[in-house]
Amino acid sequence: MSKDVLNNQPIVRYENGELVESHDHYVTEFPLTIMVNGQEFATVICSPNNLTELVVGFLASEGVILKRDELKSIQIDDSKGFAHVELTKDLGERVEYSTKRMIASCCGKSREFYFKNDAAIAKTSMSNITISPHQVLEMMKGLQNASTVFKQTGGLHNAAISDGDNFFEHRQDIGRHNALDKLYGYCIYNHISIRDKVLIFSGRISSEILIKATKIGVGVILSKSAPTTLAVQLAKDLNITAVGFIRDGNFNIYSHPERIKAIESN
Amino acid sequence: MSKDVLNNQPIVRYENGELVESHDHYVTEFPLTIMVNGQEFATVICSPNNLTELVVGFLASEGVILKRDELKSIQIDDSKGFAHVELTKDLGERVEYSTKRMIASCCGKSREFYFKNDAAIAKTSMSNITISPHQVLEMMKGLQNASTVFKQTGGLHNAAISDGDNFFEHRQDIGRHNALDKLYGYCIYNHISIRDKVLIFSGRISSEILIKATKIGVGVILSKSAPTTLAVQLAKDLNITAVGFIRDGNFNIYSHPERIKAIESN
Repeated sequence: MSKDVLNNQPIVRYENGELVESHDHYVTEFPLTIMVNGQEFATVICSPNNLTELVVGFLASEGVILKRDELKSIQIDDSKGFAHVELTKDLGERVEYSTKRMIASCCGKSREFYFKNDAAIAKTSMSNITISPHQVLEMMKGLQNASTVFKQTGGLHNAAISDGDNFFEHRQDIGRHNALDKLYGYCIYNHISIRDKVLIFSGRISSEILIKATKIGVGVILSKSAPTTLAVQLAKDLNITAVGFIRDGNFNIYSHPERIKAIESN
Repeated sequence: MSKDVLNNQPIVRYENGELVESHDHYVTEFPLTIMVNGQEFATVICSPNNLTELVVGFLASEGVILKRDELKSIQIDDSKGFAHVELTKDLGERVEYSTKRMIASCCGKSREFYFKNDAAIAKTSMSNITISPHQVLEMMKGLQNASTVFKQTGGLHNAAISDGDNFFEHRQDIGRHNALDKLYGYCIYNHISIRDKVLIFSGRISSEILIKATKIGVGVILSKSAPTTLAVQLAKDLNITAVGFIRDGNFNIYSHPERIKAIESN
């Protein structure tokens, strides 16, 4: 059984001064419990599409796997909301580790942990990619075109990964992290190198999203919105080019502008 | 020392086809570590304003306090990013309890926990408020007017609490939960009854936000955006009226429409 990202449900609509019974599409919020080697690992609240990619990306992002070879099997049971993952290795102390990580990445239980440990896990970017301003604008246009389908519902985060040229993959989710994990999972599953790719994101670049981008391993992140102060500080430290406010043919570069080259190729 | 919600920083701007050095305002992301009775309780990543309210609302929302009388003192040290809270009681097992709660509310570590425990903590609304469609539209207009100041930066969540009449308080934060906690803290601190108030929110009504609203104790939540399926299911179960897509003089009622009365008072 496949789940829908959108659901059609009865509502009461107020329109032209009258309350009338109607229907509306709205966004599905789907809890997926990830079991690893028979143990409960985490529950992710997500949009119920591209679930295999999501699981792969989530496990990679949590440091459980590094590459596809470490996966023996993944079975998605989306009627019950479970993903059963078998690894080719033991999970070891990863369960407890992950629990700690999850607290840190959402809520920052420990200030020290948030700053030191999470920042230590995040990798300094080794990306050598350079892109032109024209490519920046085109990639954001690509994200906007790809996300048009669900525009009327609001509330879905859109993300894409691109080389600025022909490679362009787009994913959606109600969760910001999940949209990025789906892209990450897609790349790992298909042995696609990430280092010289660009992330394009519909939402604000917060410190959490910036840390996620460094874990994925891109060198450039593009956003329609502004980043936060803490995200910019991390981007500077971790050698990430953060570009925001991409609107009306203009944009702002908040860190490492050397990857954006003004001279366009012909 | 007071922190700014916005920071002015050097950037590289691409405008009219040229890369130029410039400055831009962007949003501060501020880690505030909350110490309760000398123990570290949590670190909240927030916008650095209304911090006393935030701490009070957060502790109430986590079940640590019920009313202002349980607070002996709160000292905010915003140069170091600490809030020192003394209660008139022991914290007891609350520290561990809260850690568990934080996992659940962000990431849903345990599926059972997410559904059963969090739903059990959330209160069924006893609110008797009824409001007219005109009041729905006016309250959303109120939120939009109040949030205009920071419109240019993007990325701040806006929330307000109102009785649909003269009482209207507005707060902003980079974190969705924080904006609601600031309002909750304001009401607790000032002994303002919440049951017959309405929450007005700039973002999507997800299950997390709906659960937050029930903890705060309102009967109605209004949003510009659509709710998710899980939020609507919880709203139906917990007797909350969820209203979304408030745009161009129209809106959708997703649950408990009986609180919205079409007959307007003169």
